[in-house]
Formats: sequence, C-alpha cells, structure tokens
Amino acid sequence: MSAIQPFPEVEHQGATFAQGLMLDCGVQLAPVTVAYQTYGRLNAARSNAILVCHALTGDQYVADTQPVTSKPGWWANLIGPGLPVDTDRFFVICANVLGGCMGSTGPREKRADGTPWGTDFPTITIRDMVRAQKLLTDSLGIERLLAVIGGSMGGMQVLEWAATFPASVFAAAPIACASHHSAQNIAFHEVGRAAIHSDPDYFAGRYWEHGAIPAQGLSVARMVAHITYLSEAALTRKFGRKLRGANAVTFLEDVFEVQSYLRYQGSSFVRRFDANSYLTITRAMDYFDLAAEHGSLAQAFLKTPTRFFVASFSSDWLFPTRESRALVRAMNAAAARVSFVEITSDKGHDAFLLDEPEFHAALGGFVAGAARAVGV
Amino acid sequence: MSAIQPFPEVEHQGATFAQGLMLDCGVQLAPVTVAYQTYGRLNAARSNAILVCHALTGDQYVADTQPVTSKPGWWANLIGPGLPVDTDRFFVICANVLGGCMGSTGPREKRADGTPWGTDFPTITIRDMVRAQKLLTDSLGIERLLAVIGGSMGGMQVLEWAATFPASVFAAAPIACASHHSAQNIAFHEVGRAAIHSDPDYFAGRYWEHGAIPAQGLSVARMVAHITYLSEAALTRKFGRKLRGANAVTFLEDVFEVQSYLRYQGSSFVRRFDANSYLTITRAMDYFDLAAEHGSLAQAFLKTPTRFFVASFSSDWLFPTRESRALVRAMNAAAARVSFVEITSDKGHDAFLLDEPEFHAALGGFVAGAARAVGV
Repeated sequence: MSAIQPFPEVEHQGATFAQGLMLDCGVQLAPVTVAYQTYGRLNAARSNAILVCHALTGDQYVADTQPVTSKPGWWANLIGPGLPVDTDRFFVICANVLGGCMGSTGPREKRADGTPWGTDFPTITIRDMVRAQKLLTDSLGIERLLAVIGGSMGGMQVLEWAATFPASVFAAAPIACASHHSAQNIAFHEVGRAAIHSDPDYFAGRYWEHGAIPAQGLSVARMVAHITYLSEAALTRKFGRKLRGANAVTFLEDVFEVQSYLRYQGSSFVRRFDANSYLTITRAMDYFDLAAEHGSLAQAFLKTPTRFFVASFSSDWLFPTRESRALVRAMNAAAARVSFVEITSDKGHDAFLLDEPEFHAALGGFVAGAARAVGV
Repeated sequence: MSAIQPFPEVEHQGATFAQGLMLDCGVQLAPVTVAYQTYGRLNAARSNAILVCHALTGDQYVADTQPVTSKPGWWANLIGPGLPVDTDRFFVICANVLGGCMGSTGPREKRADGTPWGTDFPTITIRDMVRAQKLLTDSLGIERLLAVIGGSMGGMQVLEWAATFPASVFAAAPIACASHHSAQNIAFHEVGRAAIHSDPDYFAGRYWEHGAIPAQGLSVARMVAHITYLSEAALTRKFGRKLRGANAVTFLEDVFEVQSYLRYQGSSFVRRFDANSYLTITRAMDYFDLAAEHGSLAQAFLKTPTRFFVASFSSDWLFPTRESRALVRAMNAAAARVSFVEITSDKGHDAFLLDEPEFHAALGGFVAGAARAVGV
C-alpha cells in the first residue's frame, strides 16, 4: 500500500447536465458535471463574460485559494480586482476540464453505481472538454463570451472554442500553445504514462480498490514534465550545479539541488492530482490536431468572426514560438483578425504563469480592446 | 519476479590490475579489471595506438559484434579497415568503462566473496574511468596514444585524458560533449534514476538476490534519455503524429508510432544493461566539471602539448554547440592547438553515431594529420 493516500474529497461548485455529451469517441457520456468558479458579476446584457481555460494540471481555482493545496490561484497575478483581467469589470469563469479531478466528470468521480470511473472513463479530446464548457456557459445564459483565454493546454481549448463555436467567441487568446502536439511532446507524455503504468500501486488503474495511489510513477511523470516546463537557462539560474551541503563526490541520493527540487515537485504533485486523470488528459493533448480535424489549419478559422491574440515566450521549448507563428499564418490565411507577440523571457514554458509584465500588459490591452469593441 | 531475466554472463577479453586504483572518492578499489577490445596491430614503435572512449550505454565492442545483442559495433561505420579511423593502419583500443557492465569492474561484477558489488560499488568519476584506461594502455606498453577519441560521455573521457595525462595524448577528439553536465542534463538523469529507484524489482539495489531486474524503471529511464538523444526534427521526420493502424481516437495503449518506438527502445535496453551500472555511470557524468576540478577551464589545458579536434552537431540539444564553443575558447585561452567544426545535421545528439559524411571526413582528416605529424 502507498505511504501516500489519495487526496481528500472536497466540495466543489458545479453544474450537472443530465443529457450529457456525445464524445468524439462515439460514447454518450451522461450525466456530465462541470465544476467551476466565477469571479466578478455578469452584467445585465451578459456581455462581459470571460472564460479562462486551464492547463494539464491546473483547475478551476484560477484566482482563489485551491482547496486541496491551500495555495493561491494559478493565475492570481493576472486575474482579480484591478488586475489585467479585471474582475471588477468582467465576469470570469473557470471550469475544471472534463476528465479532470477537481469535481468535473472524470476518472476519479463516481458513476451511478457508486464506483469511480477509473480506466472505464472514455477517451476524450480537447474538443470534448470545450463542449462540456459550452454546456456550462449556455446554462449561465451566455450566448457569446467576450473572451476565451488560456495557456498551454488551455490555449488548445481556446483554439477549439474558436474553431467549434465561432459565434460564441468574440475574442480569443491562445497563449504558449500550438495547433497540435508534436512528436517530441507526445514522447515526453509517453514516458510519464509508462512510469505510471509500471508502478505496482497502479493496479491496472483500479488503485482505489487497494487504498493505494501510484505515487512513485505519477511523481516520475511530473518530474519529467516539469523539466519541459522550464528553460535550460531557468534551471541553470535556479540551480546550476549547486550541491546540497556537499562539496565533494559522495553517494548521497540527491547531491545536486536540482535533484531535490524535482523530487519535491514530484512528491507534492501526487498529493493533489489523480493518476487516471493524468493519463486521460495527456492523451487528449496528444490527440489534439486542429489541422487534421478541419482538413487544414486555415480551414479551422475560415470566415471566423473571432479576433485573436496569440502570444509565445522566447525560451519556451515545449511550445516554441515557431508553433505560434504557424497559428498566426493560418489565421492570416483565413483572413482572421489576429495580433501576435513573442515575449522575451528566459523562464521557458512556465513563463505564461509567472509575473511577466510585458505579457500581462499585452493581454490586458487585448481584453480591454475587445471590451471597448462590444461596449462593456 | 521480473518477466525479464538478467542478461547472460559472457566472456570478455580483459586485463586485471591487482594494485587497483585510488578513486576520487578516496576509496582504494582493487583489483580492477578492464575489459577491452583491440583492432589492427600495434606497430614496433608503439606509436599508432588510438583509444576510443564509449558513451553512457556503449561498450568496448566499438567495431565488432556485441556478444549480448549480436548487433554490429556502435562505431562500425567509422572504425575498421579502410574507414576514416583505419584499422589497417592504426591499433584501436576500446575499453568498457569502470562501472560498466561488459566485463570491467562495476556493480554487476563479483567481489572476492563471490557476491556482486551492487550498490556497494563506490562512487566513481569520469577521471576514475580514465585512470582505469591508463592502467590498460600502460600495460600494453603504450607511452603515448596517437589519439583519444570519443563522443558524449566518451568526449568527457577524452577531455579528462588530455587534462590528466597530457604527455600521453598526442591528439584528442572530444565530440558532442561539454566541460560539465548542465542542470537540465542532471535533471533528466535524475528522472531516470527516480524511475529505477521506484521500481519494486529494484529491491534497494540487491535485485540479483531475487532473480529480478528493475526492468520497468530502467526502461522508463532509457525512454526519457532516448528523447534527449534525438532532435525534435528527427522525431517528427521519423514518426510525426503517425498512428499505428488506427485512424480515429481510441484507447489503445500505444496509438502513436513514437510511443511504440520508445517502448521498444526501453524494453530492448534492459536486455543488455545493468541498472546499478546505469545509476553509477549517470552519477559520474553528473559530477563531471572540468573547470571546478582545475580552477578554470583554461587551466585544465594550460601548456598542453595535445592537439584538439572539437566537433558538435547543430541540432544536438543535450550537448549544444555553445558548449563546444566554450571548450574551444578555453583551449584557445590556454594557447592549445585546436580546430573546431559544427556539423550541420538535424539528427540531434545521436548524429555522432550515425553516418554523417562531413563529420567522418573531418575526424578522419584530423587523425591522418596527427599520424603524419608523428610519422606513422
């Protein structure tokens, strides 16, 4: 049995849709619960709603305390009263993705018979996640979102929103993402999945029956993913080759600071994330390929009314700038309205979550411009 | 118990040195066996010997069939009769590194009491590997090597040879390497080690007592390392997002070809490599820091009589060209004789093992020039 227990079940605000969803894989999933948080107030015209989409291991607690970790919201530096995405002015919605583990229907949630979905949870796509969010925004009476914003896998959802429901998205900001997952990114995901699958506490995905979690495998998965979120420059600046208390060759387990940091990242992650969710969501990312869905990337945005803001970070090697440029070229080819900025930063992919004033100013300006255009 | 058994013990040619070695960690290791292969004939003046140093998972079978895998030598495209390193002309020596698992003293080899060293094997450094090779070349009566050649960790050994035994190295070719292991490279190694440590078949390093090997953990370690050996371009060209027989979203285990390729790489690796060796050697690489050993990198080569040939590959992100340039700058600062070439290739770090005609021509020319200079 694992030393680490599954994280506690906590109450999340959510909406349940009895009719559910027809998924891309052909399965009718019903009912579907979408757990979400909101910030600010929806105006009478219902025209000031901004949907924020979270990344692989994010959740709906974008701007308030995460109930499991008690840590601040993951974009609390960007979204809040008086911030670039100003919750005094906008109604911000953030939903846990379908397949997630913070209250939305996913592998950790229970079925009608009281048992968790586990590995019986169907294969989902980024578009399925977006369809679940659409159920939510429809239920809130929002016909058109002022903006949809997200980074990394959140950016993939933004692109799917614009491609699938163009009339419902006035402005879209896909950040630090790409139109598809690259072979290298699939490969890194596969390493993480292999680590989880090879953990004996995985019990073929039915670990809850054994009071266990595949903590070691999930931890290794997080460690390798974490390296891809940082630039080499950021790792070097943070740790270089610094030794922990040792100044000679020893056989200590983690003699380099970067080792102990990574182990910490791995071990804290397993206290807040579900392994089957990780498998489900990484697969959804791997399947993501907007051009394949639409015949070509430009086709995905043809005649779109949506205005786009694409941003990349210069040292991001998980979703490098050239991927964002390819998006912009396709949007241009589709005669879409698009602006693009590459933010100079040596912090790697993680930069989209960090305090990057130039990025915050550019995104804030885009949102303000969209608000002005619709008279909010 | 693992489904995969430890690979069979095979006979290797080797020399045993009763006096052993004083290691950098302060342990006297004795006796020390160095397993090695030779190709060609040593001339009467003993002036035509070229030492080839292997990389992390390489071995002494550089130019003939590997006895465990029955595969051709890992540099059989470069070294052999009539090839750029011509064994009709030169006497080529390649030794299994100290800590390795193909016959040299290492965790898999037995101690005097008949039990394997396992995790009792002392911490070793790249310099210790080089010292073991020096025992061998001394025993062969070779006072000065015409050249020492190696790529990746082999290149680290080349640098240590030149820095530690400058009078014994006429020419040195460190390929696709660096003067130290970067924080990012240490981090990738740490993921691999964490995967091995977390495999229950690791049994705290005493897996042989259980007839087991930590195959899953070692396989994951190999998978993540393998990604770093390839460029994104090479992965994309080889696999792109190609699906294996599937053309729709499924829940198959390895739907993308890149996944099945990586799993194959992992599972075949565990049939030829020892997990404790992997831990020992990756640590030796992580500790490698020539500047720290000598006060500065230039100091490591001050007044060296050795002539150098440094080569990098343009798409190598494990040991990028900038690391080779830093080496060249330090050699220049030490007034050493050095030439440098960056080979344009999109094959990543692996390129040093592949058929790269420009690289082979440049290295062959360097070796021929050294031979001419000493009258071989």
